[in-house]
Amino acid sequence: MKSPVTDYLEDLLTSTRDENSGELAAYIPELAKADPNKFAIALTTVDGRSYAVGDVDHEFSLQSISKPFAYALALADRGLSHVISKVGVEPSGEAFNELSVEEGTQRPDNPMINVGAIAIHSMLVSDSAGQQERIDHLLDFLSRLAGRQLHIDQSVFESEKETAQRNLAMAHMLKSFGLFEAEAHEVVEGYIAQCAIKVNVQDLSIMGATFANGGVQPITGEQTVDSIVARQVLSVMVSAGMYDGSGTWFAQVGIPAKSGVSGGVLGVLPSQLGIGVFSPRLDEKGNSVRSIEVFKQLSAQMGLHMMNAEAYSYEAVRLVRQVGSETVIELQGRLEFTNAEETLHRLENMKLECADLVVDLTRVSEANRVGRAMLLDGLNAIQDEGIQVSLLDPDNVLKMRGECEDDGIQVLSASSE
Amino acid sequence: MKSPVTDYLEDLLTSTRDENSGELAAYIPELAKADPNKFAIALTTVDGRSYAVGDVDHEFSLQSISKPFAYALALADRGLSHVISKVGVEPSGEAFNELSVEEGTQRPDNPMINVGAIAIHSMLVSDSAGQQERIDHLLDFLSRLAGRQLHIDQSVFESEKETAQRNLAMAHMLKSFGLFEAEAHEVVEGYIAQCAIKVNVQDLSIMGATFANGGVQPITGEQTVDSIVARQVLSVMVSAGMYDGSGTWFAQVGIPAKSGVSGGVLGVLPSQLGIGVFSPRLDEKGNSVRSIEVFKQLSAQMGLHMMNAEAYSYEAVRLVRQVGSETVIELQGRLEFTNAEETLHRLENMKLECADLVVDLTRVSEANRVGRAMLLDGLNAIQDEGIQVSLLDPDNVLKMRGECEDDGIQVLSASSE
Amino acid sequence: MKSPVTDYLEDLLTSTRDENSGELAAYIPELAKADPNKFAIALTTVDGRSYAVGDVDHEFSLQSISKPFAYALALADRGLSHVISKVGVEPSGEAFNELSVEEGTQRPDNPMINVGAIAIHSMLVSDSAGQQERIDHLLDFLSRLAGRQLHIDQSVFESEKETAQRNLAMAHMLKSFGLFEAEAHEVVEGYIAQCAIKVNVQDLSIMGATFANGGVQPITGEQTVDSIVARQVLSVMVSAGMYDGSGTWFAQVGIPAKSGVSGGVLGVLPSQLGIGVFSPRLDEKGNSVRSIEVFKQLSAQMGLHMMNAEAYSYEAVRLVRQVGSETVIELQGRLEFTNAEETLHRLENMKLECADLVVDLTRVSEANRVGRAMLLDGLNAIQDEGIQVSLLDPDNVLKMRGECEDDGIQVLSASSE
Amino acid sequence: MKSPVTDYLEDLLTSTRDENSGELAAYIPELAKADPNKFAIALTTVDGRSYAVGDVDHEFSLQSISKPFAYALALADRGLSHVISKVGVEPSGEAFNELSVEEGTQRPDNPMINVGAIAIHSMLVSDSAGQQERIDHLLDFLSRLAGRQLHIDQSVFESEKETAQRNLAMAHMLKSFGLFEAEAHEVVEGYIAQCAIKVNVQDLSIMGATFANGGVQPITGEQTVDSIVARQVLSVMVSAGMYDGSGTWFAQVGIPAKSGVSGGVLGVLPSQLGIGVFSPRLDEKGNSVRSIEVFKQLSAQMGLHMMNAEAYSYEAVRLVRQVGSETVIELQGRLEFTNAEETLHRLENMKLECADLVVDLTRVSEANRVGRAMLLDGLNAIQDEGIQVSLLDPDNVLKMRGECEDDGIQVLSASSE
Repeated sequence: MKSPVTDYLEDLLTSTRDENSGELAAYIPELAKADPNKFAIALTTVDGRSYAVGDVDHEFSLQSISKPFAYALALADRGLSHVISKVGVEPSGEAFNELSVEEGTQRPDNPMINVGAIAIHSMLVSDSAGQQERIDHLLDFLSRLAGRQLHIDQSVFESEKETAQRNLAMAHMLKSFGLFEAEAHEVVEGYIAQCAIKVNVQDLSIMGATFANGGVQPITGEQTVDSIVARQVLSVMVSAGMYDGSGTWFAQVGIPAKSGVSGGVLGVLPSQLGIGVFSPRLDEKGNSVRSIEVFKQLSAQMGLHMMNAEAYSYEAVRLVRQVGSETVIELQGRLEFTNAEETLHRLENMKLECADLVVDLTRVSEANRVGRAMLLDGLNAIQDEGIQVSLLDPDNVLKMRGECEDDGIQVLSASSE
Repeated sequence: MKSPVTDYLEDLLTSTRDENSGELAAYIPELAKADPNKFAIALTTVDGRSYAVGDVDHEFSLQSISKPFAYALALADRGLSHVISKVGVEPSGEAFNELSVEEGTQRPDNPMINVGAIAIHSMLVSDSAGQQERIDHLLDFLSRLAGRQLHIDQSVFESEKETAQRNLAMAHMLKSFGLFEAEAHEVVEGYIAQCAIKVNVQDLSIMGATFANGGVQPITGEQTVDSIVARQVLSVMVSAGMYDGSGTWFAQVGIPAKSGVSGGVLGVLPSQLGIGVFSPRLDEKGNSVRSIEVFKQLSAQMGLHMMNAEAYSYEAVRLVRQVGSETVIELQGRLEFTNAEETLHRLENMKLECADLVVDLTRVSEANRVGRAMLLDGLNAIQDEGIQVSLLDPDNVLKMRGECEDDGIQVLSASSE
Repeated sequence: MKSPVTDYLEDLLTSTRDENSGELAAYIPELAKADPNKFAIALTTVDGRSYAVGDVDHEFSLQSISKPFAYALALADRGLSHVISKVGVEPSGEAFNELSVEEGTQRPDNPMINVGAIAIHSMLVSDSAGQQERIDHLLDFLSRLAGRQLHIDQSVFESEKETAQRNLAMAHMLKSFGLFEAEAHEVVEGYIAQCAIKVNVQDLSIMGATFANGGVQPITGEQTVDSIVARQVLSVMVSAGMYDGSGTWFAQVGIPAKSGVSGGVLGVLPSQLGIGVFSPRLDEKGNSVRSIEVFKQLSAQMGLHMMNAEAYSYEAVRLVRQVGSETVIELQGRLEFTNAEETLHRLENMKLECADLVVDLTRVSEANRVGRAMLLDGLNAIQDEGIQVSLLDPDNVLKMRGECEDDGIQVLSASSE
Repeated sequence: MKSPVTDYLEDLLTSTRDENSGELAAYIPELAKADPNKFAIALTTVDGRSYAVGDVDHEFSLQSISKPFAYALALADRGLSHVISKVGVEPSGEAFNELSVEEGTQRPDNPMINVGAIAIHSMLVSDSAGQQERIDHLLDFLSRLAGRQLHIDQSVFESEKETAQRNLAMAHMLKSFGLFEAEAHEVVEGYIAQCAIKVNVQDLSIMGATFANGGVQPITGEQTVDSIVARQVLSVMVSAGMYDGSGTWFAQVGIPAKSGVSGGVLGVLPSQLGIGVFSPRLDEKGNSVRSIEVFKQLSAQMGLHMMNAEAYSYEAVRLVRQVGSETVIELQGRLEFTNAEETLHRLENMKLECADLVVDLTRVSEANRVGRAMLLDGLNAIQDEGIQVSLLDPDNVLKMRGECEDDGIQVLSASSE
């Protein structure tokens, strides 16, 4: 059986391929040589499954898509508070290549515009690191995100060095602010190397899925960065990932994203997906025309907009039945704040006076920290009122076996039912 | 049993009450008279359950918190494309009372700054509506969101009319751009009336829960606005709800929000919660000091940050077993894109050649449109390969009973297991 | 004999009349009805002689040309330091109708942009003056500048009131800053009345000549404002008179100037001339196309650029001759700093040991305070060295007769030569 | 006899020396080592006489004062229209070291801010010139302005190279705009060399006097640049010479000026003076505290404000007398537009019917092109009406001898009177 996901993506590829407007990036000679017809889409889930259609093996340089990844590494290397003291998280309201910094603090507005990204690159490893050290460290990190060894596109690297005046201007300005001790041209060369790292759409989707998965690479299982770092990166992608059009993008598409001038676009849906799309023709803002269209369709047709609120009929409490002197409450779905709250609400309103309480977690697929804590707090309170509480938790979603029996809550074995 | 949610909120109230910094709003005389010690928190779920602690009956004027609601009503009254052509959705990078508009288009940057909110107010009902008509229409809408009749605080209304010069400046500017035909002072008076509408924290949390719930008021069940309108409003709250600090807020707290100068803050978590907090002392940016702190604690302690990605062990396929010639695949949790995809992936990899397939949906709590469509597409494809597919769906989450049997998929009754 | 000045101006009128580009002011209906072919030029000297060609009797409303005059009156009414504390003197770098003010101080950038001019109008007379009082006071002042009773163009006044939204916006903003207590709409109506005052080109040139003449109306001889006020007004015309093109204007034309949307342009050359030109077709910046061209020609052909430095062969000391035991030094031209300095320099280098000194001022046409003081200081020093100094000053340019003979310097009567 | 000018300047030095506020320039280490007590003032007239008091031999680096001179040289080397197409003439409204350029054109706002000055330096000689060629050419030009060989301060040059990051940023940005082909660091090094050229206050006043004198060095008599270039430079000094305080400076002081961070200030009064002042302690805007004060005093006490209009009693026509059948009109002062006009006016109003006219120019000290042409035109018109016109012009101010007798105007010899 062929996956309907793949079918869907192929349909999307076909219908979007008609979009032939846009131009190749003109200002970097090597990018201007790209094959304008290359087109590919990939999704990777937080479980590590990928779907890829089109020119899936075609490699392209990351360009600005490298910015969120380098930001993550700087956050990991130097700590959240240090990095935020140097580079802000507010949208700049200006084009990607403006030299603008905050008045007073002289912080670049955010790490997604060039001046902020150069500042971030200069922070990699440590203040005393050398140019090659920063590049090697970042290339190693990106390779671990992708799950394979990535490489720098030497022709693109050389080509961009020729047109780096504006980036040099920014680096000299940052150095004049005392942001780094290194030579400005070394930082810029390192930044250009960062932009020239090659990936294919599947790499991109896996790298995105790693951030969707709280920093855990979904295939290798490696915790590449702390979950708080992944969260910070995704937050800034929401605010500033699409430059001065970030508000419009989030209203229309609702997926944290970052585009690059080579034609790639990265999307990340927390807890769900990484998305990579590639097509080299760009609109006048420097975003891939077809990639943007693919994201709009994906969001609309697959319900991926983060601000969607579909009115589910879902209920945390599947049923309540009376079995002799026991009241059995059967829960279902995920146990997080929302349905822990619902469960406790139901328990509050039940007349439990003389009855024992059995909480059946058989149909609960998982529980997070907050959901677990809330339910246990509530059950303890009931226990304190003199009611005997028992848990039926065959999959051990509350992770109670052994550890929590001191609370007096009895954990039943599945077979005891 | 007292709810742990209430306990938690009371603890939060107690621990945050020590925060005594900040000043009452100075520029509106009536607000400067507020009791600085009032403090209240309320949560309302998309199921319509509210938790409220502190001065829960204390009413305060909405002020800027009225902006997202008025925006929703204008979107409903005039259509998304019309409203967007008049007022943008990008952050302004400036304080709330700047007169700034986009160069060229003369659109106010977004509906969350005053100049945008005045433009939005002028659009209510229709171009030909009168001042009172706009106010009545909005008051009726907000009352339906809150589920009770709301009122205008006449003292605040009169007090703000005295200090409305800056808003009058904006209205005259907008009128000079041809945005409306009405008298500038009438639009400003209407806008001031909008800001003076009184709520308590529970109202606020219910109004927020309505947007979290795709526009469906969770208690009355009324579809107050289309889900696409709710989504648009929440998106703009993310980009611009906290003015020029929206990026920092979203990185730290991760909850779409809007604050008002009276001391209230509204938060909305799509599909989950509306949150209302009130405390009148403001920081130098005009946000309630304690309310901000409450949101930071709520986000951190209850895991409400939207960019969180906790690494769940969750699996859509609970187990697969062979029962005679049948392969039974048992699903669990919600059926949406992510776990429909996982399920199909497992089916692809199973050797089903000679066996019949039974899909057991007993533990599936709910399914959305995309999840339903994907699973059925996949099962039809298997059926086409000559394998007999049966569904065990006692709660009818696929809504197949009757309608889809033409596909050849057999729907088993629960008792047939 | 017909004056060559008139001939020259008529030639200029003829050659410039071919310039038919530009459009009538569109945004004020009454101005859009103007006869596009009207064209007139007038010059008035600081001695009060006027030359006027073309449609010399045609009246037009002052519009923005009223700004420097109202600024002068506010400076006279309220004092230089008070006015400067409220309205700056720096160019704004923005179009005339921007609402921009200095950050922090909230001062409008200068009195030549609308927001500054409205602020200036609000300051006329006193803080407690009424609307009509401000208008009457200004109309009286402008009439004294012109030397005849001026009137308000009622149709233009009414027409502009219809389109005053942007000015109302500014007035409300200024009131919100606490700049004035009056009603915003009253200040705007007064300002519109100010703009609607009618003049012809000759009036304009006389009004300009008054400022060129240090505030002394050249025909009536009235000291309308203090010379320090006139100087301040001309300085601001240099910096900001032509809005965001003031630097280009001053480099090209070199004459302090102010244009109005009705098609008039005022120019003032300190100590020399007032210039008024009128032609209603405007370029895209709102300046009269032909009037601008007339100024460029006048500057280039008549050598009126203030930064010109023609290499004169001029010498202050006409000749030195020895007459018996007397050394006679004959001066010529104006006695100001520059040639007083030259004279003293020559005296220093002369061997005067045994000779008496006669200073012949017969050919000195005038002397200012500094020139007079420097010469007398130098002569006193010579006298102190034991040399007898005598002055021959038939026109009494040093104003010594009687008053200064105590210094020991002998004033010869003309006939004593 | 000691010159009262020197006395005056010494008094000014003494009274201003008490002003001890301000700090040495901190950001260039070598400047921070300056002796804070050095203080000197020099004036040079367009006739080439200098007055200098204080530490007159003390040399200091030009820093930003080099900007108007380099601008003049670029205008001479490349032509006015070419240079203006690359660098504007409008004030920037920003600090000297902002990277701002005009939107759209990408022209630096003016040649007085650093980014404009770097652009100007890159244009020296020709597009293909090398770094040393530009420096040598400029050093030679400045030496010709000063009338002696100037030198580069090597310690300052080396010191500034260490802190040139911001200037490098600007140069790279300009190169990214395609403004020059040279290496960015070479242009910056050249610009730093330009800033490090050493002068004393007398040099500065002579260099200024050259521009006051229409480009003619007043001592050597060399026409260093065309008068139109001198005019352009002075115009831009008016608009932008004191950065974002240029409007305030011109209103208060009224002298085109340029300051440098080493503590020098240059002032130029067209047709009159060059002024150089030096004292190294700076206010928070980077201008020399004492030098500013000296300029304010000079302007106020010596009447040097260019917008001054002292009400002279001056008349061009000294007297008219009837000598037999001849009407003799005796003129005085300079013959330029203003008094040629006055003279013609008087002639128009005289009844000359039967009389011959003698125009006595004995007391006319000089005449410019316009004054000469106007008078001759007027006299020719009178001649055409049948009246015999004779000129008495012993000093030949009309330059008529020989050349113009064809007009029929008789030139009398002085002795014929």
